[in-house]
Amino acid sequence: MTLLDPTVDDYVAGVLAGNRVLLSRAVTLIESQSPLDEKKAQKVLQKLLPHTGKAKRIGITGAPGVGKSTFIEAFGCYLINQGHSVAVLTIDPTSKLSGGSILGDKTRMENLSRQARAFIRPSPAGESLGGVARRTRETMLLCEAADFDLILVESVGVGQGEVALRSMVDFFLLLLLPGAGDELQGIKRGVIEMADDILITKADGENRPRAEQARLEQQAALSFLQPATPGWKAGAALSSARTGEGIPQVWERMEQFFRQLEPQGLIAKRRQQQAVDWMADLIRDELQRRFDRHPRVQARFPALRESLLRGEITAVSAAGLLLADFDGGPENADL
Amino acid sequence: MTLLDPTVDDYVAGVLAGNRVLLSRAVTLIESQSPLDEKKAQKVLQKLLPHTGKAKRIGITGAPGVGKSTFIEAFGCYLINQGHSVAVLTIDPTSKLSGGSILGDKTRMENLSRQARAFIRPSPAGESLGGVARRTRETMLLCEAADFDLILVESVGVGQGEVALRSMVDFFLLLLLPGAGDELQGIKRGVIEMADDILITKADGENRPRAEQARLEQQAALSFLQPATPGWKAGAALSSARTGEGIPQVWERMEQFFRQLEPQGLIAKRRQQQAVDWMADLIRDELQRRFDRHPRVQARFPALRESLLRGEITAVSAAGLLLADFDGGPENADL
Repeated sequence: MTLLDPTVDDYVAGVLAGNRVLLSRAVTLIESQSPLDEKKAQKVLQKLLPHTGKAKRIGITGAPGVGKSTFIEAFGCYLINQGHSVAVLTIDPTSKLSGGSILGDKTRMENLSRQARAFIRPSPAGESLGGVARRTRETMLLCEAADFDLILVESVGVGQGEVALRSMVDFFLLLLLPGAGDELQGIKRGVIEMADDILITKADGENRPRAEQARLEQQAALSFLQPATPGWKAGAALSSARTGEGIPQVWERMEQFFRQLEPQGLIAKRRQQQAVDWMADLIRDELQRRFDRHPRVQARFPALRESLLRGEITAVSAAGLLLADFDGGPENADL
Repeated sequence: MTLLDPTVDDYVAGVLAGNRVLLSRAVTLIESQSPLDEKKAQKVLQKLLPHTGKAKRIGITGAPGVGKSTFIEAFGCYLINQGHSVAVLTIDPTSKLSGGSILGDKTRMENLSRQARAFIRPSPAGESLGGVARRTRETMLLCEAADFDLILVESVGVGQGEVALRSMVDFFLLLLLPGAGDELQGIKRGVIEMADDILITKADGENRPRAEQARLEQQAALSFLQPATPGWKAGAALSSARTGEGIPQVWERMEQFFRQLEPQGLIAKRRQQQAVDWMADLIRDELQRRFDRHPRVQARFPALRESLLRGEITAVSAAGLLLADFDGGPENADL
């Protein structure tokens, strides 16, 4: 069955039935920037909302080269063998369009992509971080409605992406390479503070002693930080996707996390806060976008910035002039 | 000489001459929320701008009870004995009006306030953090124009205030109590990462061993963090305002900081970035303020938030509805 232009009800029924083709197309609808598609996507989501929220949402991050895809492949296959159904959403900062990177990622997770109970979908990073977060969050909801019980969201551990990722998942796993110190430099300050657990990857062969050393250092570093999730003590462990070591233990830790926090209502509370924060983020992004795209603001900004850098004008005056430009536009009579 | 209503030129001449009365009144002008005063204040600042930027800007923070005022009193008196002139700007989150807290703070720093080359001025916290930052930044400029060569800005080490403080100073000093662990709980995550140095206060008498223990722990914690100022290695030291121990060393460290970073242009570069960031913050705050105060947005927000918390609506839909309210208002035809 291939629908040329599925209706809202087609999408809803298809996703609820776990139809992969319609799920994929619903994700594409969500990623569309056409206002018509956006409206349709919101209608689909609105109808699916009562069926969402049941999955465990896991964020996985780490610097390029740490072996995220290899870990997720091994971890995902393990989970499926345990009877779970797993959706993997990866945020690909190098791709603006989803077309190309899908194949790339499918190839990177060959075994996992062959599993019937797996769904792998890369999100193009798009133009703004808010955009990434928005599409990935909503794709997560679609996957929940399609009855996946575990959602793994992967992002590259550089830049602001981790804050966005942390703000949409229940559990946040940070992957680090053996040998702390230098390797840590690729990780943005504050990322370790957001982790619910740290996993040292590639802890096999001659890497092994360095990995154990890194684990001890990370364990020490964590002891100086407040927990990312109140009531949960983050730890550092070793894993090897090659030997399979540590993979079941990662899942044991996550199960323990949910077993401990869910009955206290802490997961539900975190999700509520995330939803409210997300709404505020969307509004702030949109207000800023309107300002940044205003023709008069754009025309005046470079010269004002230069004056500011040369110390010829105060920041308050510069901001005031730009806001006056924004207000003075023909489309706006806000003040 | 008491001017009933000083002109812009009166203010400029008075501040440049180091007239304390006019300096104080210029600060009051900057703190005023009347649009007329705001305009006048900007004119004063614009004329004073060429005379600003020469002071070293030091931020000092720490949880309530750590002894910030006592430290600043001892440190400020030491600096004045060394031939410096010192302006102390304190951000008082408990006061909305400056009237009451001035006396309070003057009393807290009795010796320092008697010094001819000291100027102590508390900023009322006011309604918004952006507001605090704005007034304090501009007061800092006034003090520079009045030829103070050291500006100490103090804030209470809880909440978001540290980020604002970090963003307006060259050097950021964090005060901690002896005995790490529990005492650290009052310090927000991320504050330690912003510190250029950590000072363990009250390191005297029976506190001494605990203070030394805390210093070692902080030193270890710092080794896991990237430096707040690239090229500068933050350290942890002990001090006692009672015995005077450690006070000259704090200043030595700061002098070393400026000696090392100024010739490389790193201080100037940081200040330029701070000015650009500040402008962006002011614009974002103002855009958000307009949104938050919009009558239709205010009317709809509580019910939408409830729906969001109950999971009846997506964050994207909720944000869209509020933005439509904002656009649909009679004063606005932005879209």
